[in-house]
Amino acid sequence: MRIGVDFGGTNIKAALVNGAAVGAHVTVPTNAASGPESVLDAIAQAVGSLGATAGQVGVAIPGEVNDAGVCYRLPNVPGFAAYPLRDALQRRLGCPVAIENDATAAALAEQKFGWGTKYRSFLLVTLGTGIGGGFVLDGILRRGRGGFAGEIGHVLVDSGPGAWVCGCGLRGCLEAYAGTAGLLRMDRQAGGDAAEVRDIVNAGGQRAQRLFEFLGRALGVGLGRLNNALDLDALIFTGGVAASLDGIMPHLRRHLAEHSYSPALADIALHTSALGEHAGVIGAAWLGSA
Amino acid sequence: MRIGVDFGGTNIKAALVNGAAVGAHVTVPTNAASGPESVLDAIAQAVGSLGATAGQVGVAIPGEVNDAGVCYRLPNVPGFAAYPLRDALQRRLGCPVAIENDATAAALAEQKFGWGTKYRSFLLVTLGTGIGGGFVLDGILRRGRGGFAGEIGHVLVDSGPGAWVCGCGLRGCLEAYAGTAGLLRMDRQAGGDAAEVRDIVNAGGQRAQRLFEFLGRALGVGLGRLNNALDLDALIFTGGVAASLDGIMPHLRRHLAEHSYSPALADIALHTSALGEHAGVIGAAWLGSA
Repeated sequence: MRIGVDFGGTNIKAALVNGAAVGAHVTVPTNAASGPESVLDAIAQAVGSLGATAGQVGVAIPGEVNDAGVCYRLPNVPGFAAYPLRDALQRRLGCPVAIENDATAAALAEQKFGWGTKYRSFLLVTLGTGIGGGFVLDGILRRGRGGFAGEIGHVLVDSGPGAWVCGCGLRGCLEAYAGTAGLLRMDRQAGGDAAEVRDIVNAGGQRAQRLFEFLGRALGVGLGRLNNALDLDALIFTGGVAASLDGIMPHLRRHLAEHSYSPALADIALHTSALGEHAGVIGAAWLGSA
Repeated sequence: MRIGVDFGGTNIKAALVNGAAVGAHVTVPTNAASGPESVLDAIAQAVGSLGATAGQVGVAIPGEVNDAGVCYRLPNVPGFAAYPLRDALQRRLGCPVAIENDATAAALAEQKFGWGTKYRSFLLVTLGTGIGGGFVLDGILRRGRGGFAGEIGHVLVDSGPGAWVCGCGLRGCLEAYAGTAGLLRMDRQAGGDAAEVRDIVNAGGQRAQRLFEFLGRALGVGLGRLNNALDLDALIFTGGVAASLDGIMPHLRRHLAEHSYSPALADIALHTSALGEHAGVIGAAWLGSA
């Protein structure tokens, strides 16, 4: 039995994990605004309430972490810039801790228990407030030099002065269009006033179609251009909007084809995640096992 | 002793290779316009003239090849679209043949005998008529699903109707700007009339500076955005213009920084190839050995 923690901007989920099965689990609020000490207390409390010990606790985080266990920053959780998260958590939990970006941890879960059993090289794409991702390339989970591998939200989809500004400060990033803020902005420009993306999807009809087309284009340009360089086996989608992949698919396929260097690249396999919402804790629990 | 062949659009070079050392070698014209049969004859003649046999002949080609040994196409050598090159060469040479994209083969050479001894994850970038590349990621040479991995010439650097058209038919590709045709087009728009890129470099002064800045920008945007997703250890440059990396470097660094999601990505190592013009035959000779 392993212990995995999915540390999100809103909630912290701790779970006992057996293979791909999630056993006892607990969810507590992150209270992101309360500061790092309080957030670490919440993680320790969640793990403690599982009433079990493990040789290691794995933690998936909403940001990047380097090989020394230091966060770069957590965009939605203040106070964690250049924070020595691994050391701090090891002290609290009294056991070894492994930390990984949440999308990269989810890619590890997908590799071991999901589509990774069919594909050796794939990109797991997380669609949500931000656009994240995790790579498994030739059977190896890729972290990158500083833990940034898979941050596909900041590939280029648009250039020039009219390109939309991303939360990261750059212009024309995939996330500026395909993230929640971009999708709501598009809807607003077309006369809508949705507070959440799911409201647009639920509205159905032309309005939902417009969302699917817009998202399919942004993903098709960004991921098609990236795939020209990587020649992956598959793109695996997860997160809120991924449930609408059927609606997005024809647009995504068309734009992937328009931006692919060869038809051999354009016919890349497209799937929704085999693991869904539990991928984070499962991947976290299995960190370091590959 | 191994045998490597570098099959280029202009010349075919066959060489005996011992480690990273190139021994006896011969160069014959490709005569690209003469058709596949004649080109294969030239390869067989070049290999035969080495007066040696090997368990395998490795061939680096100016295009992509799938796992079945079939070319996708060779942009500068007519008649090789969907051509079963491995089978055809095995019949001519009477021994097993391994085939790889030339930039990917050069990346293998760099991995074994050049900067790869220092860096586990790097992109070898070939600057020339086209912009090619080869990835070594976490110590593994990446071919991709259909042999396209490393085709970085077709990542996005510019979008919109004014984006320059690439030889591949897409708009806004890195190669449309940083390839020979793009560099000459830029020079022409600024009043120049160079027939070759080296004429601009040799002219020196403002005109060469303009070239370095333009090339640094195109590479900075294209590779910076790609690196946001990959978080590589190093970019290694080779090919004609790479000799001017000192002049390109400040511009490349600035644009890499402007398009990097984090300072931790912007300080990626930049080098010229440790192997230079022989990388193709060396990599070809060592195909399948990793």
